[in-house]
Amino acid sequence: MLSITEIGQRAKDASVQLSLLPASEKNDILKACAAGLRNNITQILDANLQDVAAAKARGIKGAFIDRLTLTEARVEEMAKGLEDVAKLPDPIGEVLEKRTLPNGLIIEKRRVPMGVIGIIYEARPNVTADAFGICLKAGSATILRGGKEALRTNLATVSIFRNVLSAMGYNENMVQILEDTSHEMAEQMMRLNRYIDLLIPRGGSGLIRTVVEKSTVPVIETGTGNCHIYVDKDADLEMAVRILLNAKVQRPGVCNACESLLVHQDVAKTFIPMATKALQEKHVEVRGDAAFQQQEGVVPATEEDWGTEYADYIISARVVKDEQEAIDLIRRYSTHHSECIVTENAYAAEKFLNEVDSACVYVNASTRFTDGGQFGFGAEIGISTQKLHARGPMGVKEITTTKYVIYGTGQVRP
Amino acid sequence: MLSITEIGQRAKDASVQLSLLPASEKNDILKACAAGLRNNITQILDANLQDVAAAKARGIKGAFIDRLTLTEARVEEMAKGLEDVAKLPDPIGEVLEKRTLPNGLIIEKRRVPMGVIGIIYEARPNVTADAFGICLKAGSATILRGGKEALRTNLATVSIFRNVLSAMGYNENMVQILEDTSHEMAEQMMRLNRYIDLLIPRGGSGLIRTVVEKSTVPVIETGTGNCHIYVDKDADLEMAVRILLNAKVQRPGVCNACESLLVHQDVAKTFIPMATKALQEKHVEVRGDAAFQQQEGVVPATEEDWGTEYADYIISARVVKDEQEAIDLIRRYSTHHSECIVTENAYAAEKFLNEVDSACVYVNASTRFTDGGQFGFGAEIGISTQKLHARGPMGVKEITTTKYVIYGTGQVRP
Repeated sequence: MLSITEIGQRAKDASVQLSLLPASEKNDILKACAAGLRNNITQILDANLQDVAAAKARGIKGAFIDRLTLTEARVEEMAKGLEDVAKLPDPIGEVLEKRTLPNGLIIEKRRVPMGVIGIIYEARPNVTADAFGICLKAGSATILRGGKEALRTNLATVSIFRNVLSAMGYNENMVQILEDTSHEMAEQMMRLNRYIDLLIPRGGSGLIRTVVEKSTVPVIETGTGNCHIYVDKDADLEMAVRILLNAKVQRPGVCNACESLLVHQDVAKTFIPMATKALQEKHVEVRGDAAFQQQEGVVPATEEDWGTEYADYIISARVVKDEQEAIDLIRRYSTHHSECIVTENAYAAEKFLNEVDSACVYVNASTRFTDGGQFGFGAEIGISTQKLHARGPMGVKEITTTKYVIYGTGQVRP
Repeated sequence: MLSITEIGQRAKDASVQLSLLPASEKNDILKACAAGLRNNITQILDANLQDVAAAKARGIKGAFIDRLTLTEARVEEMAKGLEDVAKLPDPIGEVLEKRTLPNGLIIEKRRVPMGVIGIIYEARPNVTADAFGICLKAGSATILRGGKEALRTNLATVSIFRNVLSAMGYNENMVQILEDTSHEMAEQMMRLNRYIDLLIPRGGSGLIRTVVEKSTVPVIETGTGNCHIYVDKDADLEMAVRILLNAKVQRPGVCNACESLLVHQDVAKTFIPMATKALQEKHVEVRGDAAFQQQEGVVPATEEDWGTEYADYIISARVVKDEQEAIDLIRRYSTHHSECIVTENAYAAEKFLNEVDSACVYVNASTRFTDGGQFGFGAEIGISTQKLHARGPMGVKEITTTKYVIYGTGQVRP
């Protein structure tokens, strides 16, 4: 088995060829890889059956097995995803700024590929194809490290891509996957600064914390969302219920789902019963403050609740005395992902937008819109909750970098 | 003394007020701080005299003492620097993108402040004022951790700024400096993810390596430059000598100075004697390959030389068989800061610009131009050699972030 340094060196070498490919060739590769998935679907599904059987034999069940399991339809989605990425505009080579200095130097800021991108993720085999596709379009080689439970599926998938690359005459190391899924190997990968330019963890908060903690390679933190909805005194309360329900139950397991409800005291008396009833009808457990506890079935919220991303049919809820208190609470407990104010008051809206320090801040719309597809990016590699490099949904453009190119005629510095 | 958590909390609190200040108020603060430096120059110079005396007493000498020492002229430069930053355009609030989606949602991408920026630097007291000024203009509170030898000077400087802020009715914690200059405290600062949004190390390669290694807070790596000049077969050799001399000796101690010379074999016979003579006349030691060693006074280069940033009157030099070999060597040994090709051949130039993976890539101009001032940024907080967030010289704009702001009329996700 290759050492992590060898894998890094191979990725770096392949990244040189990849960084120079024109859009048409990258798109041809993506389309050929999509065809490769379709033509080898039996191979993928067989490998996946083994992964699923092994996971079940180890006593794993429930949502984990669902995420691990591939079907014909899911493989078709992976193939379709690669074709969709092929259709996106190519961001590489875009000139972002161009100026001529008084001394005659022409300075251009050009968008260029990152180089090598590492992706560390859990046992969701569709990420293998998605991450490879978006990184390739962005001109970067990929080193994948997926969850060990999906290893057979991932190896089958990556070997299809590598065969396609090789058959087309390209360096197959544009995509590699770690066969050694030990923590030691993952930690070595997190310290491979010489070869990996960017590391993106995709998964639960534990995984992300570990990568942020242990990585010396620059990381983009993605994902965890303790998203708030604040219902202002000037809210349309019917609209507030619609947004709340959508944000909470349309898909409770995802990072842009609502986890915490804040209600202005002036509308509390009317809104609390409305909201509680609507949530409970959708089988959401409400963990509330004293005011919410007046409603039947509401469980008392603990301090821990305010900071918890449930990713489940549970919500924390409390009354605030004014908008400022809502903003302060969000600053304190939020993971800076997505927050929403429901209000008809333009001043209150703008104050919230300005003062809430999160990647996406909404007025009168569901937090569930925080998504690369919804934002029109065509594909998404994750949602950044950090402030460096990219914030919010990240598409192809967000995983590129820039360089300055300077044309002179012999200028020297006086 | 305050704990690092208290310092972080105070900075975060102050950053809220600062993030909402209009440009005019930030500029007034900067001008008042400049006046504060001038009015309290005795206090600063007295503190500096003590720092310098203490350093000398510990046997420190040479360039270190020079960098540590403030004079009236240097304090005036610091004051002038703050006034210059006040004159720059305010990047905050700029709308970078604005779109209306088919469902009616209006999405805006706005430039917003980072929040809290930590700066870890060495015993250069001018950095204290420079870093504070540029961060304040960018709307972010600053936590400074300077070299222990400059502590008295830094405390005197920061206390002037804090008094100005407080007298103007602002939160003085917009700038703080660590009084505890121990490594333990610095390492705690590097792990203060809850309060610090961005950490910028400024200094030598050892400092930068330590911060990259130990920090869990997102870091922008700045500085070290093993910059190359490649003299192509189609170079104007007189121009090549002028550029080479400027890049090597105009200021050898800085990161954008040239450290390594690559010469195409077709021009080696003519260029090697020209270059060697010109460099030696400027007292530059040439460490060369076999071809360069034909010249008197040239020292044999070791493998280590190719990867060394001398920051001194020394250069490594070798002959390459073609441009591709030059590019490959640069990929291998460069720190991805600044590289230059000297050529009259447009194809060779464009190949070099495309394939060399550095922050700034030049055709026919000195690498010494890699500088925020030279690029027209007005002020610079460092030169990024990483690919995340900012690459090359970083001005005010480069230490901001963005957020998405979404206006709806009750939209929910289908």
